[in-house]
Amino acid sequence: MQIEDIGEFGLIEDLARLLPEGEGVEEGIGDDAAVLAGRRRDSYLLLATDTIAESVHFRRRAAGRRVGRKALAVNLSDIAAMGGLPLWAVVNLGLPAGTPVRYCREIYRGMAELAEEFSLSVVGGDTFRSPGGIVISVTVAGEVEKKRCVLRSGARPGDVICLTGLLGDPPRDKHLDFTPRIREARFLGESTPPTAMIDLSDGLFADLARLCRASGVGAVIGESSLPVLDSVRRRGTAAVIRTAGKGEEFELLACLPPPAAESLCLELEAALGTPLTPIGRIVADPGRLELIDRRGTPRPLPDSGYQHFR
Amino acid sequence: MQIEDIGEFGLIEDLARLLPEGEGVEEGIGDDAAVLAGRRRDSYLLLATDTIAESVHFRRRAAGRRVGRKALAVNLSDIAAMGGLPLWAVVNLGLPAGTPVRYCREIYRGMAELAEEFSLSVVGGDTFRSPGGIVISVTVAGEVEKKRCVLRSGARPGDVICLTGLLGDPPRDKHLDFTPRIREARFLGESTPPTAMIDLSDGLFADLARLCRASGVGAVIGESSLPVLDSVRRRGTAAVIRTAGKGEEFELLACLPPPAAESLCLELEAALGTPLTPIGRIVADPGRLELIDRRGTPRPLPDSGYQHFR
Repeated sequence: MQIEDIGEFGLIEDLARLLPEGEGVEEGIGDDAAVLAGRRRDSYLLLATDTIAESVHFRRRAAGRRVGRKALAVNLSDIAAMGGLPLWAVVNLGLPAGTPVRYCREIYRGMAELAEEFSLSVVGGDTFRSPGGIVISVTVAGEVEKKRCVLRSGARPGDVICLTGLLGDPPRDKHLDFTPRIREARFLGESTPPTAMIDLSDGLFADLARLCRASGVGAVIGESSLPVLDSVRRRGTAAVIRTAGKGEEFELLACLPPPAAESLCLELEAALGTPLTPIGRIVADPGRLELIDRRGTPRPLPDSGYQHFR
Repeated sequence: MQIEDIGEFGLIEDLARLLPEGEGVEEGIGDDAAVLAGRRRDSYLLLATDTIAESVHFRRRAAGRRVGRKALAVNLSDIAAMGGLPLWAVVNLGLPAGTPVRYCREIYRGMAELAEEFSLSVVGGDTFRSPGGIVISVTVAGEVEKKRCVLRSGARPGDVICLTGLLGDPPRDKHLDFTPRIREARFLGESTPPTAMIDLSDGLFADLARLCRASGVGAVIGESSLPVLDSVRRRGTAAVIRTAGKGEEFELLACLPPPAAESLCLELEAALGTPLTPIGRIVADPGRLELIDRRGTPRPLPDSGYQHFR
């Protein structure tokens, strides 16, 4: 068996099974960040980690500043999905011999700018020689109030499934420039914290399926409710599905209790300018993952997320 | 200017200069781990991060178990150098397409075994496709009592410079199997915490010079005091210097206040079986970095550490 046969989660969950849960570990592996004993009685420490690699997640023709920004942003997106705030980051930067120092400085500048925007500090790191292209691993430590901490596993039948932002044909390399949805997640946490949340790194269908698996529930979403660009919608069902299934959108998928959901969507857009769109409902049957297309026909949810090892 | 011209610390310190120090950051970049606001009033949170890459830090012929062990061990060595205890680790595992799953499982097994030995939990991570060989980035969060926290910058003139273990021609790939000196550092912290400490990742001379730079002091060490294997010593000064200058030994270099130093060396060896050898003294003049050879002749400290980008 080779590595093509096994996805990200399989491998990391394997590791989890090898290990007993230790002191101070509040929630196990499988969420966007580990939930650990915090600085205060009423808060958790969060640890998120993610890597971007040249010619897998970006190409060298992309400006270093955008690449550095993305390396940090993907981690902030994970902290957002837990309802938390980022505090500190450490960086491992792998560089092939011959990388221009100017390019490295640009990577740092991009990270520094985003770190400043979200008031976190880059507190350490390491560089190493990387034979196969630039590799940037970032780990972010953050914090979340216990009552605001959102896991993937809390969705309940009847919850309204909501999605931030607008999915669409991205301008070239848009995935490098996204703004992690920290503010949006914090806004939701202030009044009615979501019952479950996940960020879309592998595409709407793959990540929704993941959230449902963690919560032991199903989901029914509507094609006509999906927040896609008009230009995509005009091209029909296949285009909408292809767009929604694409990875690297980094929007937040949040499950909201039904009484509050509708007003929260309006309030969030009014406060932050980010659309929050109800796209469907959580259902009790864990085997039911459905998309109702524009003709009203239910079809199984396409599971067309990003495949790491293709 | 290309990346050959700039070392690990230059780059990371560059990044530090781009950023203001944030809330909860107790000590800046430049130590083995970042020192951050902790879970309790009397403790700090430590964050250490390090990467090992195939064909740079290990070869594929090495068993996966030893490779996984090393990826975690280099980080535990950083936590040891601060006087701390590890709590949690997150792992980023980069794999080329076609890596046998068995090899990945072996990597995890090696990590899990070492994690169990030091009572820490691996709490999350990510896998990604790596075009240029296996890359393993590990971040460890740990904890240290404020009064036991040791930095690189605290060495004072008169301090006795001590080194754990025995340097020597390692058996093939010994660097994969070292045991991080957590217990030794904790033992020292119980009675008389070192004034400064660093782990030898880049070789005795490079890392001693780094500690002296951080502390604003100099150092004089004696060739005949260096704890090297007899087989090395018999081959003369050049062999001793070459051996001591080699990287990847992961011993601890600790500066101890003179009244306690000698008895601490004996007590540590009696308690844990690890030799702790006085090899020289800290001196006030920051420009003085000397090795007294076996003929009593002072020579400038060779700065022959591991070069990351050669």
